[in-house]
Amino acid sequence: VKKVPDVSVTLRQIADYIGGTVVGDPEHEVHAVVSPEKSAKNTVSVIWEERELGKMGGEGFLVGPPSFFNGQREGVLVSDPREAFVKLLFLFKSPNKRGKGVHPTALVAETARISPSAFIGPFCVVEDNSVIHDHVVLEAHVYIGANCEVGAHSVIEPMAVLFSDVLVGERTLIHSGAVIGCDGFGIIPSRCPKERPVKIPQVGGVVIGDDVEVGACSTIDRGTLDNTYIGAGVKIDDHVHVAHNVRIGENCILVAMTGLAGSTELGEGVIMAARSGAKDHVKIGDRAQVAAMSGAVKDVAPGVVVSGFPARDHKEHFKAQALYLRLPEIFSRLRELEKKTKSLEEEKE
Amino acid sequence: VKKVPDVSVTLRQIADYIGGTVVGDPEHEVHAVVSPEKSAKNTVSVIWEERELGKMGGEGFLVGPPSFFNGQREGVLVSDPREAFVKLLFLFKSPNKRGKGVHPTALVAETARISPSAFIGPFCVVEDNSVIHDHVVLEAHVYIGANCEVGAHSVIEPMAVLFSDVLVGERTLIHSGAVIGCDGFGIIPSRCPKERPVKIPQVGGVVIGDDVEVGACSTIDRGTLDNTYIGAGVKIDDHVHVAHNVRIGENCILVAMTGLAGSTELGEGVIMAARSGAKDHVKIGDRAQVAAMSGAVKDVAPGVVVSGFPARDHKEHFKAQALYLRLPEIFSRLRELEKKTKSLEEEKE
Amino acid sequence: VKKVPDVSVTLRQIADYIGGTVVGDPEHEVHAVVSPEKSAKNTVSVIWEERELGKMGGEGFLVGPPSFFNGQREGVLVSDPREAFVKLLFLFKSPNKRGKGVHPTALVAETARISPSAFIGPFCVVEDNSVIHDHVVLEAHVYIGANCEVGAHSVIEPMAVLFSDVLVGERTLIHSGAVIGCDGFGIIPSRCPKERPVKIPQVGGVVIGDDVEVGACSTIDRGTLDNTYIGAGVKIDDHVHVAHNVRIGENCILVAMTGLAGSTELGEGVIMAARSGAKDHVKIGDRAQVAAMSGAVKDVAPGVVVSGFPARDHKEHFKAQALYLRLPEIFSRLRELEKKTKSLEEEKE
Repeated sequence: VKKVPDVSVTLRQIADYIGGTVVGDPEHEVHAVVSPEKSAKNTVSVIWEERELGKMGGEGFLVGPPSFFNGQREGVLVSDPREAFVKLLFLFKSPNKRGKGVHPTALVAETARISPSAFIGPFCVVEDNSVIHDHVVLEAHVYIGANCEVGAHSVIEPMAVLFSDVLVGERTLIHSGAVIGCDGFGIIPSRCPKERPVKIPQVGGVVIGDDVEVGACSTIDRGTLDNTYIGAGVKIDDHVHVAHNVRIGENCILVAMTGLAGSTELGEGVIMAARSGAKDHVKIGDRAQVAAMSGAVKDVAPGVVVSGFPARDHKEHFKAQALYLRLPEIFSRLRELEKKTKSLEEEKE
Repeated sequence: VKKVPDVSVTLRQIADYIGGTVVGDPEHEVHAVVSPEKSAKNTVSVIWEERELGKMGGEGFLVGPPSFFNGQREGVLVSDPREAFVKLLFLFKSPNKRGKGVHPTALVAETARISPSAFIGPFCVVEDNSVIHDHVVLEAHVYIGANCEVGAHSVIEPMAVLFSDVLVGERTLIHSGAVIGCDGFGIIPSRCPKERPVKIPQVGGVVIGDDVEVGACSTIDRGTLDNTYIGAGVKIDDHVHVAHNVRIGENCILVAMTGLAGSTELGEGVIMAARSGAKDHVKIGDRAQVAAMSGAVKDVAPGVVVSGFPARDHKEHFKAQALYLRLPEIFSRLRELEKKTKSLEEEKE
Repeated sequence: VKKVPDVSVTLRQIADYIGGTVVGDPEHEVHAVVSPEKSAKNTVSVIWEERELGKMGGEGFLVGPPSFFNGQREGVLVSDPREAFVKLLFLFKSPNKRGKGVHPTALVAETARISPSAFIGPFCVVEDNSVIHDHVVLEAHVYIGANCEVGAHSVIEPMAVLFSDVLVGERTLIHSGAVIGCDGFGIIPSRCPKERPVKIPQVGGVVIGDDVEVGACSTIDRGTLDNTYIGAGVKIDDHVHVAHNVRIGENCILVAMTGLAGSTELGEGVIMAARSGAKDHVKIGDRAQVAAMSGAVKDVAPGVVVSGFPARDHKEHFKAQALYLRLPEIFSRLRELEKKTKSLEEEKE
């Protein structure tokens, strides 16, 4: 992908931004941050492992610890290159350059209120009584149902859907294909053949806090009666399912393909690893973790790491799993014992 | 979420609708049904567990069994509060107030036929020869491919896609982000390095019955030659995948993240629990159940509950699973036996 | 689904196309290829199993091996009916009949370049500097972000999203609801309560090769610094997640609900079966396979088939799994041994 070089900063600016010391001419221009293998003129690479250093070409600039500067290399000297890396990415990430105003093709209901500093992209639909706050960006093809509210500086990517009664906080980012406020799956199974399952109407909404991220193709269902709730700072990856009435505390992380069944409750700072899950009504305590591919079927205490299905203490599960892998050996040792015991019994007779 | 109070009913109307007896002034107005914790003036809460009763404030109305009315409380007395709860939700669920007609921004092919009572929302596209029946609602941004048919009173939510050759029954609800009629994954793997896998064209369609629900971000692929088939009354949650040539009998329930591989067949009233699956060509009998996180790799007899992967009779699986968790104990008992046997053998010598 | 008979070919044309010999009048007309159960006038069915032959009605044409033609049946005689079946489907698959040109409702940035032979459907958005090559079809409601490129003859289905910096090769097919180039999930978890997790900006792009297929509701995240890379000929089913910095070699197959964590690397011709996965940074060798419902947590050597979680050699896993199912028996044999040993010990005293 050949990108338009839309960023140009000097080594001095980089040093100021990430907190470091320039090595060489502070007016050198930098157009991109790249991996060491792609180091070239006007690029900068951040390195914290010695073995990465050899991959760099001679013309690119370096951000690294003092020991990596050998007298020839120019760049910026830092004490914590990892931290510098994240900061540097923010510097080079093109800021969203959307202006403000409602695109002429967008459809905004008369009763909706749009801040003059917000951007409403092409083909967006904003329904009755919804409120879009300052500096919000709705990219193209965003659907906002009735009675929604989107907090200041939040961004909603193309093809995302907010049904009615969804409240989104400030600085929140909702990715494409996310569906928020869809009916919860409240279904009463049929009790006898030929009877239809019955759908329970879902009249609650969804409340999403500040600084949240919701990944592509993720779904957050509306509550049955109250609101499904996502606390501030929660980060949700792609293909995650949050069912009706779930409550997620602040700063939780839900990795891709995680599924939370109805009315589960997560404390603060919980980590749900990839493709993990929790049974309905399960409570997971503050800063607990559910390992990848695992499913919690009962409450998890704060700070505890659980794994497996049904999930339990990670160390316990690990022991059982290790023995599972040794089952063929265990079985042959059992058979060996059976032989010996039989022979002992026979001798006795 | 501050909702506009768009519903106002009296206790008398509630009693009539759900079948109960008014306690107090039948002309009291009710604007919302809420959980007991949120009970307040002009709200009603339905309670069937004693411990919930204490959570109610003094001003809200109650729907509950006779024993919960202590002389002060007003509301509606019912014999089956759970059933009353579902009915009450229907009463308060704002009916879809869409009018009728084709929105001026929608694009409808000349050869398509749209009932005068249907609503075609903003930015919808309806392609050649498709038929939209009476009182259908296509919300904004719905794509209907060629040769489709959507039955009376069905609703399709924003950003849902029906490819060509998809037939949808009556009163069916398709949620946002659902993709119906996408190519089945008919791929012939390459037999040697450098060879491309070959895509098998998929020329069948999809038939969906009456009273079906398809969740957000769920996919139902078209058949290779015949139609993928979803029987009447089937309820499908979010993130569910139904592959090509699958046949699902009436009234089945597919919970979130379930996956059915190609040509699987479900009888009537089957329940596929969360993140369950079935291997291609597997047949699952009437009213059978596949437990959460389980995968059926061979046929399941009618009425049987299976779990695990590979799935088998739930009781059998449960026994094995319980012993799996006890593997460390089993292993130490085995080692103990080995010691004892060795010592018996040595003594013998 | 009643389809418009938009294809009409003669037996002679079929024989020429699939490489066979006409049996009967070469000018007979055929309007559809159907399964044997649906055989009727002007249809053709392909049969390679004797038991399927009995399901055919008398009026339909047959494509099959010589032994299936009994003197009455007309059709086309072939040596390899399976191969003929795939070819025949290509003949009957209606070619995409989109014309060329930009639909009047589509919005194309001034700096974007669109080939005159490309079709840009209704409500499409193409942002700055993007390039759409010859004969590309963007169906309705496709979003193409800035600095993208879509190679000749590629097709993008309704509601698919390409964020900025996505390069798509030639003859590639991207299905509805797919989201390509979304931010990778680079999140630094909080180290103490109340601290927010930190999002690492993602400035890389996505490169997708020629002849690729990306299924409905699948996501391919952009790289952190470099590009996420999908090799030529790769076939991706629905609900698949490809995280940031992943590299997939040519001709791999990823079946539905597969998830690849960040920076995994797949060689050429790898098969990831349904709902399989790989941990971050894992390398899977050429033509290796990960079985359904399995998760690779360490590197897999070329050509090896692994299964289970944690995945290991399929045969080893199979043995352990078989014994897992026999755990109740193993446990009762263990208890039996304990009894016998105890009795041997007691006798000894």
